Amino acid sequence: MALAHKGLESTSILEGVGFSEKHKLEFSNQELVPVIKDDDMIISDSWDIAVYMEKSYDSSSSLFGTTGDFSQVKFISSWVDSQLHPLIARCVVRDILDVISPSEHEYFRGSREKRFGKRLEDVVADRENTRAILKQTLYPIRKALEIAPFLGGENPNFSDYAIFGAFMWAKVTSSFQLLESSDPIYNWRERMLSLYDGLAKKAPAVDI
Amino acid sequence: MALAHKGLESTSILEGVGFSEKHKLEFSNQELVPVIKDDDMIISDSWDIAVYMEKSYDSSSSLFGTTGDFSQVKFISSWVDSQLHPLIARCVVRDILDVISPSEHEYFRGSREKRFGKRLEDVVADRENTRAILKQTLYPIRKALEIAPFLGGENPNFSDYAIFGAFMWAKVTSSFQLLESSDPIYNWRERMLSLYDGLAKKAPAVDI
Repeated sequence: MALAHKGLESTSILEGVGFSEKHKLEFSNQELVPVIKDDDMIISDSWDIAVYMEKSYDSSSSLFGTTGDFSQVKFISSWVDSQLHPLIARCVVRDILDVISPSEHEYFRGSREKRFGKRLEDVVADRENTRAILKQTLYPIRKALEIAPFLGGENPNFSDYAIFGAFMWAKVTSSFQLLESSDPIYNWRERMLSLYDGLAKKAPAVDI
Repeated sequence: MALAHKGLESTSILEGVGFSEKHKLEFSNQELVPVIKDDDMIISDSWDIAVYMEKSYDSSSSLFGTTGDFSQVKFISSWVDSQLHPLIARCVVRDILDVISPSEHEYFRGSREKRFGKRLEDVVADRENTRAILKQTLYPIRKALEIAPFLGGENPNFSDYAIFGAFMWAKVTSSFQLLESSDPIYNWRERMLSLYDGLAKKAPAVDI
């Protein structure tokens, strides 16, 4: 989404990286996606990638606002990492088993059950309740959307992409409905799905 | 803080409004502080006041960023209302009894115990644990402060004032230490206290 925002063309080096295929990322000297390669530059971490693109490529459309207002965007993307993502995980983590290769199951279940301290089935057992907490936690997004169509204002910025990334992760791994269709955030997500000729809709989704 | 940010002079109409003195706010057709009166305009609610000042007074220093980026500031101030303020309340609410008039105790205890569903003493009984949750919840602020001295960047904006307001509320009502002095947010709060010739330091504090 951030590449499309900047109007940059890209191709996929790797078709995908399974949990047992971290060796495919050795060229980046770390083990996590996303990673981009731009000539000789290799950058990982979505925040660092966005900052790199903002500083390397002139564009009429900034990812951080025309004042170069990185701080508030950093607040919002860190809120996604620390508060939104863990709640979504507690809704969908069991369903991920159904969309990854059976050969990955043992690694995925073992590493995630260690992290949560319980069986994945038990993590999602009360996800109706988790969804109610999620709804409350999303309150600041709802308030921001009362005054403009995107967190970035009239147009999306990296704050929108950071939040949307968490929802897309859910969409490609689970059919569990995180949002009621009456929630203004539902319509925001629809707007995000339609951006750049429906770029995000092309991702292989389970359902939404 | 927002008035000082805009370089606007102001005087206090009321010396203070006790919980039993809501009639003093009748002129504003509602029951909550803050309220400002600017010629014939009467505006309540800190967000609405900030927006009013931003739109009514030209100033070299915007409260929302030079792009008029209200949405992200709204996100952050709504996060303060919905997530930060309730956690701070669970640390300090009992101490408020010690700084208000004894004649207000019955109203304050009754209304707040109804809200929390338990005695004020029981709300704060595990405030060491609440403080640990607060520390985690403040993570997005800490991350934002890694890249600039304020949420607004090189200078504070309304996001900083909204967060600071929650901490000031604690400071004037309780001596409970919300932040460790090693926390980068502690130093940010010190910077906020020093702004505008130490304006906030002049508030009658319990201790900090």
